[in-house]
Amino acid sequence: MDRVLIVLVRARNPNNIGAAARAMHDFGFGRLRLVNEYAVPFQTARSAVDASEVLADAEEFPSVGAAVADCTLVIGTTAVGERAIEHSLLALPEAAGRVREELAEDAGRVALLFGSEKTGLSNEELSHCHGLLTIPMQQYTGVRHPSMNLGQAVAVCLYELTRGGYPLPETAGWRGGDGRSLLVPSGELPVTSGQRRVPLGQMERMTALLIEVLQAAEYDRHHPAGSDDEQMRRMVLRMGITAVDLPVWMGILRQIAWKLRGGVRGRE
Amino acid sequence: MDRVLIVLVRARNPNNIGAAARAMHDFGFGRLRLVNEYAVPFQTARSAVDASEVLADAEEFPSVGAAVADCTLVIGTTAVGERAIEHSLLALPEAAGRVREELAEDAGRVALLFGSEKTGLSNEELSHCHGLLTIPMQQYTGVRHPSMNLGQAVAVCLYELTRGGYPLPETAGWRGGDGRSLLVPSGELPVTSGQRRVPLGQMERMTALLIEVLQAAEYDRHHPAGSDDEQMRRMVLRMGITAVDLPVWMGILRQIAWKLRGGVRGRE
Repeated sequence: MDRVLIVLVRARNPNNIGAAARAMHDFGFGRLRLVNEYAVPFQTARSAVDASEVLADAEEFPSVGAAVADCTLVIGTTAVGERAIEHSLLALPEAAGRVREELAEDAGRVALLFGSEKTGLSNEELSHCHGLLTIPMQQYTGVRHPSMNLGQAVAVCLYELTRGGYPLPETAGWRGGDGRSLLVPSGELPVTSGQRRVPLGQMERMTALLIEVLQAAEYDRHHPAGSDDEQMRRMVLRMGITAVDLPVWMGILRQIAWKLRGGVRGRE
Repeated sequence: MDRVLIVLVRARNPNNIGAAARAMHDFGFGRLRLVNEYAVPFQTARSAVDASEVLADAEEFPSVGAAVADCTLVIGTTAVGERAIEHSLLALPEAAGRVREELAEDAGRVALLFGSEKTGLSNEELSHCHGLLTIPMQQYTGVRHPSMNLGQAVAVCLYELTRGGYPLPETAGWRGGDGRSLLVPSGELPVTSGQRRVPLGQMERMTALLIEVLQAAEYDRHHPAGSDDEQMRRMVLRMGITAVDLPVWMGILRQIAWKLRGGVRGRE
């Protein structure tokens, strides 16, 4: 990670600089470089209350050439408008693979360049790049529109670079109240396909009915720690009840509730 | 995409709401729902100059339950602090796979819930979810720190959901000046591994020398459209020159420059 540099060129909005730095910290990158004629945006970002260590350690350079002089692979980011491109252009996932290849070897630094919010990278700035990457978006289906927010673009790129690199560890903080690990493979999410695909509004009516029954049965008085609405709702969602069975269960609960309220068969 | 809903719960910062809506537009999602006691953040976001269509079409709901009542799969997002979790927790790539499975079937709506900037989703709000997803970040290596910016989190999640779904098309706007497609596979980026890993600063000196030679040779006068600094820099970067060959090429260019300036062998 120490060999990846994020270079912001002519970023104007201090909030964006701060957001980029925070995303770097979140994803484990520490080396930020700024190229800017005006010092104000960087100074403002740096003096923000929640400024990160990444910003404190950021370096300023007078030109793109100077900022990437010690790098062996330079990739510019672009939203690609109508400007003619004279570079290899890769979609982000492929570009990230290329960066990881570079980092797998034991030397060399990689710079990712992000241009100004309004204009992106100029042709002069792009000419320092070996190639370009773009975040695949809807715009490439035909509709033109402004490019992505700078802080968001940095976050998405760094997410892709580290994708799969931060497996969720099985630590104490990730366990439920009963000590079970909370890390479950995808298949263990409640199955909601086919008949089990029930709108949440219907499940909520089932939850409400269950809560009513439990109150009538005084379950909540005997198990105060295990019967609040939220626990019941989660339990109902975990059931994986089917659309066919749901009205049957509702009928059962209604019957129990009626009985608990002292219902007599003759008055049903 | 019409079957994926983004639900922002108690978002406070209008800029974040706007950024989330723009990311939705960028990645092709149109259905935004807001749950908020206070109407001001949404109204402010909606009245912004650059507000997107997504914001204009956004719907307001009085509660999470109401906002997800028509959904068949509800996934909450969390940065996971020390709070005990009582849900299945998936890393974003796995959760996205689960969402795509749900969408591959012909019915059912999926809601992705994002909590407030300060507190995330409350336990009551989480209880409406089938499971949780988290964006894997450095924090899970042990260091605790504030969670990701809301707009960035939405962008990263939607990027992952559409990852691979927007291949770069080979349209005219994506071609170079000579009509060649600019879409190249990863392998066609200039190779910079091994001996070809040369710091950009050294390449820049080579470029400067080449430009000097071309000027001395009056190449720029005869080919004014094809000899500006940027074109030369790009051409040098495309060479994939090795660290071993670089000084040789520099020597060759220096010799040519000297000769062009009228150098005589005896004075070399």
